[in-house]
Amino acid sequence: MSEFKHVFVCMQRKPPGMPSCGDKGSDQIFMKFQEALMMKGLFNKMAVTPTGCLGPCMFGPNVVVYPDAIWYGNVTPADVEEIIQKHIIEGQPVERLIVSRGKPPGMF
Amino acid sequence: MSEFKHVFVCMQRKPPGMPSCGDKGSDQIFMKFQEALMMKGLFNKMAVTPTGCLGPCMFGPNVVVYPDAIWYGNVTPADVEEIIQKHIIEGQPVERLIVSRGKPPGMF
Repeated sequence: MSEFKHVFVCMQRKPPGMPSCGDKGSDQIFMKFQEALMMKGLFNKMAVTPTGCLGPCMFGPNVVVYPDAIWYGNVTPADVEEIIQKHIIEGQPVERLIVSRGKPPGMF
Repeated sequence: MSEFKHVFVCMQRKPPGMPSCGDKGSDQIFMKFQEALMMKGLFNKMAVTPTGCLGPCMFGPNVVVYPDAIWYGNVTPADVEEIIQKHIIEGQPVERLIVSRGKPPGMF
């Protein structure tokens, strides 16, 4: 797997009653990634970018890691350290959080 | 190259006087991608996602295509059709627009 990872965290909020990553706490997840980026000095290993809707809202909070195209679902802030250590640093995706590989979950 | 492409378009706006993709017309670029996605029925070939700041504001508007990790800079709405046809459909990145491969431009 490629050395440099790009982590995308869905920050989308939706109207009341509709599930959304933003309403399920994605800003805390984004903050944890940013914190790790800075505190662990991972600038040459990863970038972290907030996004609008990634699509599979029912699996949110959604995080996708490229170039591996690993889609993580139902991510909590507590999961971020494991994603950083295992996937970003050691190159091993965190199996228990994967909802899809290569494509958005739920697609064909 | 992998069949399914994920196109990220930076939509970030910044305070007056600071360069930003949002101020350089990235919403028209995003719209063009969305239009192609729908009009050409490319749902099983690509996803398009708007993002917050991707980092290299001076190269904006920035578009990055994964899993290929191809960074396009100074993209205009008129470039979108070529990116769709050559890169997304035919699998050949548009060389003249590439500002980096594998990592954000300007990094180490």
